[in-house]
Amino acid sequence: MAQKPSIPKGTRDFTPAEMARRNYIFDTIREVFGLYGFRQIETPAMENLSTLMGKYGEEGDKLLFKILNSGDYLRGVDRSLIDNDECLKLAAQLCEKGLRYDLTVPFARFVVMHRAELQMPFKRFQIQPVWRADRPQKGRYREFYQCDADVVGSDSLLNEVELLQIIDEVFARLGVRITIKLNNRKVLAGIAELVGAPDKIIDITVAIDKIDKIGLDKVKEELAERGLSPEAIDRITPIITLSGTNAERLESLKALMASSEVGLKGVEELITVIDSTAALGLRADLELDVSLARGLNYYTGTIIEVKARDVEIGSITGGGRYDNLTGVFGLPGLSGVGISFGADRIYDVLNALDLYPADIQGAARIMFANLGEAEAARSLQVAREVRRAGISAEVYPDAAKMKKQMSRADALGIPYVGIIGETELQEGTVTLKNMTTGEQSQLNVDDLIKALS
Amino acid sequence: MAQKPSIPKGTRDFTPAEMARRNYIFDTIREVFGLYGFRQIETPAMENLSTLMGKYGEEGDKLLFKILNSGDYLRGVDRSLIDNDECLKLAAQLCEKGLRYDLTVPFARFVVMHRAELQMPFKRFQIQPVWRADRPQKGRYREFYQCDADVVGSDSLLNEVELLQIIDEVFARLGVRITIKLNNRKVLAGIAELVGAPDKIIDITVAIDKIDKIGLDKVKEELAERGLSPEAIDRITPIITLSGTNAERLESLKALMASSEVGLKGVEELITVIDSTAALGLRADLELDVSLARGLNYYTGTIIEVKARDVEIGSITGGGRYDNLTGVFGLPGLSGVGISFGADRIYDVLNALDLYPADIQGAARIMFANLGEAEAARSLQVAREVRRAGISAEVYPDAAKMKKQMSRADALGIPYVGIIGETELQEGTVTLKNMTTGEQSQLNVDDLIKALS
Repeated sequence: MAQKPSIPKGTRDFTPAEMARRNYIFDTIREVFGLYGFRQIETPAMENLSTLMGKYGEEGDKLLFKILNSGDYLRGVDRSLIDNDECLKLAAQLCEKGLRYDLTVPFARFVVMHRAELQMPFKRFQIQPVWRADRPQKGRYREFYQCDADVVGSDSLLNEVELLQIIDEVFARLGVRITIKLNNRKVLAGIAELVGAPDKIIDITVAIDKIDKIGLDKVKEELAERGLSPEAIDRITPIITLSGTNAERLESLKALMASSEVGLKGVEELITVIDSTAALGLRADLELDVSLARGLNYYTGTIIEVKARDVEIGSITGGGRYDNLTGVFGLPGLSGVGISFGADRIYDVLNALDLYPADIQGAARIMFANLGEAEAARSLQVAREVRRAGISAEVYPDAAKMKKQMSRADALGIPYVGIIGETELQEGTVTLKNMTTGEQSQLNVDDLIKALS
Repeated sequence: MAQKPSIPKGTRDFTPAEMARRNYIFDTIREVFGLYGFRQIETPAMENLSTLMGKYGEEGDKLLFKILNSGDYLRGVDRSLIDNDECLKLAAQLCEKGLRYDLTVPFARFVVMHRAELQMPFKRFQIQPVWRADRPQKGRYREFYQCDADVVGSDSLLNEVELLQIIDEVFARLGVRITIKLNNRKVLAGIAELVGAPDKIIDITVAIDKIDKIGLDKVKEELAERGLSPEAIDRITPIITLSGTNAERLESLKALMASSEVGLKGVEELITVIDSTAALGLRADLELDVSLARGLNYYTGTIIEVKARDVEIGSITGGGRYDNLTGVFGLPGLSGVGISFGADRIYDVLNALDLYPADIQGAARIMFANLGEAEAARSLQVAREVRRAGISAEVYPDAAKMKKQMSRADALGIPYVGIIGETELQEGTVTLKNMTTGEQSQLNVDDLIKALS
């Protein structure tokens, strides 16, 4: 009956060594969120499909993991859907619940359901896995973590500034050199207005978003294909090829946007955010990038994207301001701004650059060897004292061969081994072996604790 | 189009205040696990149904949340199952994956899949949610957390001793007074052997397990109904009505078990565990309870159950030793011992006794009021200094009415408000208001940080 076990494709186990690394990242993010007064919430893994469906586009609906109803789930199902293989429609009858696809929609639902108890502005963070039935590939998983922080109920750009500080602080702590790209949806609207094609804002931004990848000429071609006149394209060109410092770019942009009210408002917002942030001394590079169009359908003001400078990988954090988080759930007009750290990509970046501190292994600081019953009993006593001092300790459970015991400490990266044999038992001491240097010394318990501290 | 949102029954949102409390519990458990050298792993929320099915009995199979296959999930399905409403069999064709039902089966699968990279004895802990399609009721949820620690690959009773120390330490830190009940499956086998009904071990233990609830007479009735002779019942009676100290009970039990080899082995194991633990000075009450039969089909040695002394609630932690964790996945003979903290019940206990420290709210330590643009810019500067000292701070994002700003600090339990107005701006100071006492003082930044530390 024995079966060779496996796990679903696109999912992962995390071993202790991997967990230690991941926890290092999560703990860093959590601590910085906390320093800025963001407070944690959690929502259930399962949401009603009525909450999730239609929020991520048609493709998103297909990528939702749906949970089969319990019990007699065929009752009341429209059998013609089965006969006609209408899988998507049938799924809505077989399943009431689905797995969380991101943290934003559950957060919106949370805000609506709990609005009476929330203090506005509400600053929340959330670190939980999400699930997507995407085709798995390198760096893309069906279960992965998101780490989101949002402020809702405040229009102030001070929130943007603090979120940029958070991004800066997290990556500074992790030792990752980053560039934060900044744009504003109002500038994009301004561009569309300027070229006399306000209805073409999506076409324009989709095209100019590609400038880094395909270059200016191809972008111009695409703009033409999307129905823009040569004059319009000529007007866009200087805007998307701005150069110089942020201040110079903003100056040029302001001049170019002179005739668009919304565009100028966007420039003003960018100036405020960039100046305020600069006054606080960011370590990251902050770069105005007018071609940045991330999440266009959703964001209404600031748009943020973070790239690692030393690893070739997509965006590792992103975010922006939105006007109407909760309208779809019956609470219109709630504005907010948020960021999302891509924990799995950050994990890949830290692995690629080997940026983990040496002491995050999570193994005990000392392992007491086991030389027999009486010796082990004494080791348990000493281990208790060591732990009381806040130092992690394990006692090898069996009186195995010393070589085997030592090799465990070695393999787990346990830095010290404590040996209590007959002599130590009589003298009330412990022989402490430093596993790195091989040095040994015989100590009483107080000195042992000092040596380990 | 607005819909009134809800969440699936039996699931919960956790607000910041609730999360702060839950994190306090999880962090306490995690820290103690770490002090004893246990290392964390995580497994995916979804497992293949082939991993899960048949591991929790027929009832368990029904309580698994199953995930509808993606895409054209009707292809290849046996349509007669649909016509005959054979929901359970059909589910196995519609679904390949299910949600984790506990942490033990995924752990067994993990050990088998990763055995080449694991150091034995392997000491792991795991804190993750599990899902069961149970009927929700008070204190029973469809999504809840388990916190498990296991040592596999060692027969030593030293592991039992350390797990009991962990239980003791966790509840001492949480301030919950507990009784740890201890038994050994071999003693139960011994009882069945003694009364000449070794095949009736399940019947006997199911009956005597109820003694606390229904009393001795009813247990005797039930034993008779389950086919035990009056003589057998007479022989069982003194065993299940042992009284006195643990030492006295063990003494009596040893005498009563004299003719059962397995029973005596169980008594010996109990003596070792109880004596070793007593030598280490447990704060919890440790009580030998021969009627304890928790998880009988699974455990083969030590059986552990923890009750809160000051709250009426079921077992809040349990565990025991097992012989064959991974046999079903093709790796026979792997013995281990583990415990599982029932986080949700512990949460209920701490809520009932109001045992949370005052400072776990998770709100910022100081909120800077916002008196206008220049003042807020200065507040951001000072907040940066405060955070650099490791102190959490928020800046009210809008220049709202002071009363509104103060009421936020009050509602969130933020203990200090920092005020930077025109005077403070000129003088380079901050007026610090203690929200508890109402006291105010004007400080420079260094003194502010000292006052907040």
